[in-house]
Amino acid sequence: MKKRWMICDGCSRTFPFRYDGGICVCGGVLLVQYDLEEIKHSRIRESWRERPATMWRYHELLPVAGTEHIISLGEGGTPLIRLERWEKKLDLDRVWLKREEQNPTGSFKARGFSAALSLLRERGETQVAVNSNGNAASAMAAYAARAGMEAYVFVPRDCPGMILEELVQYGARACLVDGLIHDAGKVVEDGKEEMGWVNVGTAKEPGRVEGKKTMGLELAEQLGWEMPDAVIYPTGGGSGLIGIWKAFTELKELGCVSGDLPRFITVQEVGCTPIVDSIRSGAEKIRPYGATTSRPTGVRVPRPPAGELILSIIRNTGGTAVAVTAEEIAESGKMLGQEGISASPEGSAVWAGLLRLVESGEIGTGERVALFNTAHSLKYLPWKAAATIPEIRSYDEYRALRDVDHAKPEESS
Amino acid sequence: MKKRWMICDGCSRTFPFRYDGGICVCGGVLLVQYDLEEIKHSRIRESWRERPATMWRYHELLPVAGTEHIISLGEGGTPLIRLERWEKKLDLDRVWLKREEQNPTGSFKARGFSAALSLLRERGETQVAVNSNGNAASAMAAYAARAGMEAYVFVPRDCPGMILEELVQYGARACLVDGLIHDAGKVVEDGKEEMGWVNVGTAKEPGRVEGKKTMGLELAEQLGWEMPDAVIYPTGGGSGLIGIWKAFTELKELGCVSGDLPRFITVQEVGCTPIVDSIRSGAEKIRPYGATTSRPTGVRVPRPPAGELILSIIRNTGGTAVAVTAEEIAESGKMLGQEGISASPEGSAVWAGLLRLVESGEIGTGERVALFNTAHSLKYLPWKAAATIPEIRSYDEYRALRDVDHAKPEESS
Ligand SMILES: Cc1ncc(COP(=O)(O)O)c(C=O)c1O
Ligand SMILES: Cc1ncc(COP(=O)(O)O)c(C=O)c1O
Repeated sequence: MKKRWMICDGCSRTFPFRYDGGICVCGGVLLVQYDLEEIKHSRIRESWRERPATMWRYHELLPVAGTEHIISLGEGGTPLIRLERWEKKLDLDRVWLKREEQNPTGSFKARGFSAALSLLRERGETQVAVNSNGNAASAMAAYAARAGMEAYVFVPRDCPGMILEELVQYGARACLVDGLIHDAGKVVEDGKEEMGWVNVGTAKEPGRVEGKKTMGLELAEQLGWEMPDAVIYPTGGGSGLIGIWKAFTELKELGCVSGDLPRFITVQEVGCTPIVDSIRSGAEKIRPYGATTSRPTGVRVPRPPAGELILSIIRNTGGTAVAVTAEEIAESGKMLGQEGISASPEGSAVWAGLLRLVESGEIGTGERVALFNTAHSLKYLPWKAAATIPEIRSYDEYRALRDVDHAKPEESS
Repeated sequence: MKKRWMICDGCSRTFPFRYDGGICVCGGVLLVQYDLEEIKHSRIRESWRERPATMWRYHELLPVAGTEHIISLGEGGTPLIRLERWEKKLDLDRVWLKREEQNPTGSFKARGFSAALSLLRERGETQVAVNSNGNAASAMAAYAARAGMEAYVFVPRDCPGMILEELVQYGARACLVDGLIHDAGKVVEDGKEEMGWVNVGTAKEPGRVEGKKTMGLELAEQLGWEMPDAVIYPTGGGSGLIGIWKAFTELKELGCVSGDLPRFITVQEVGCTPIVDSIRSGAEKIRPYGATTSRPTGVRVPRPPAGELILSIIRNTGGTAVAVTAEEIAESGKMLGQEGISASPEGSAVWAGLLRLVESGEIGTGERVALFNTAHSLKYLPWKAAATIPEIRSYDEYRALRDVDHAKPEESS
């Protein structure tokens, strides 16, 4: 049986492993720990390489107790490509792009839900719910379908139409919420008892960070067990960034990589920049962002639940945070298109961030930078209004449906 | 220097390697040959496994002379998943689905153009053109962008709007043609001299079949160097099917797999079924399909240029061909969605074909079947009309633009 437990990133206390609840009484974030001494052996990197190129090749560093619980749709193992033309133009040593849009459901969110739902299957759960800006919802919908679980997803009403179509295709029970991602989160949290679902939202359970961690494990492996000088990541709830940082931290402890961690750099869109503002102002605690005006993408998260951990990762690695405009994002999307890459607004924001930081000198000559395109551009093309998708219903309708389900116990078992 | 030459599948004559022209004087298809005796060594499978999981791990079996010419966006290495629930329901031993939608540009076409454009870069070409139902066009657009080549693509006017958006994003010069894929092919062939482009259409050059061949190489590797009992593939121009067949043939010669080749099964949509009709009627030669009524997908190819080779592969392996209706395709797309898989109409047609063949007993108890989902469902969602995409112009406009380009030699060099 795999040894796994939790440690609080805030107060360093340890706890037994838990499947739900992600925040310590002190307010810190609970992170999964493994017995790295036990995992550590001289051929671990070779064992990983010999397995199929999905994120589960690193299963020793994933929280699922036994491989029989794994719910997989072919996540991870995404390509890393070099942008040689731009290395020259920007006078950098290396510019790598990790193509996370080539995951199932077209975004890196697949990794998190593969891990999270595998854990919940291990515990025998059958109903899951999440609040999301869209990609997390569609990823959960797909993995729940694969696992035979019932998925409820709550997204802001202005969620991109293509993503709504995707949700429906995977059979999720989808609801549009008036408000932002944290408003949707309140519905999920409040409905736990009545509806009997597990809340798989950001910082509500341990699987999603662990799954996203595999982006960092893969990056290191793809670089021949080296770390880049800087990682630029589009940050919303922050578990992507946290995951990559945790990957490098564990790999160092395992002796798989050595040297300094890369500088972690966050990009957000002007109009919702809680992390950028906190970093630039030197704040201790993250301040919720007020009147949000940025567009409905994955980085529009005014109240990141693991805010302090994100700030500390950025600061402790000498990183920074940049706000880019909608215009810079659109322009960057075109530039990446001209390289043959279908970048989502979030991935384009990363590119815009790189250009800014090279211009300001914060990323300098000869550096080796890793970028992440977190989703496929197609998911964001304007499409017919959400209201026209017949499968999307109101929460009240789902509640009523559930009462009907419960009246037929032979079918709901 | 890699040894490579051509053999005609019709008359068995051999020719020196060639970068363009894919049909022999006898009407047969020219296929690339390699010195398999030279490649064959006891550790070849281990060498492949040790390389990154892209299609280029098999570069010994790809026609590009040196790896420095490779144009890669991270193609291949796609996941293979098992559909266990359906294995039980259908009483089959194994049902595997290869998720080709997880390629760059969201379809298996990426493989073909990675190989084809690498070859053309090797020869120093800078302008490429293709006729396509859409996915080949967007794949070529992306790889041409990556290679710094100018891409002209010609697609039927009813090409899915999302795919048109993709083309434009990758900077291709896109034209809508009144008619079907072969009408678009005539424009490409006729324009060669005036426009100076290379025709990268089906059976016009050797790279695309070779690139698609890597689907078969990967499948065998993912199955632990075994072949399935049957392969079901959605067939349009046919180079996907030909590629997979060629893969298994070469692997057998290399001693990497043994036993009978799988039965090759083609699926087409009712309303454009030249291959199905020829197989079912026992015809020697493929008969062009008349008044086409099927929808605009990749399998709507009334005159497959390599028709006889496709027929012989299907017959020699004991395979078959099935026509499925638009309704069965829609229903199958939903069924795959409920498994968490985003299947395009072509991938859904494969599923519909499987259900038909199990029902008819042509695929029976205990068999091991490999299916291919060739593209992402998102690419086919209804979207705004093509006519509203400003970057799409008429062929005459591109010709005029080209005259302008030529008047400024310092920029066109
Ligand atoms: C495409 C995309 N990129 C980036 C993010 C932000 O990721 P995280 O919440 O892990 O910070 C999201 C979250 O929704 C997303 O969908
Ligand atoms: C998604 C998809 N599937 C299948 C096909 C048919 O492939 P082939 O032309 O290799 O037979 C195509 C061709 O356009 C396609 O786009």
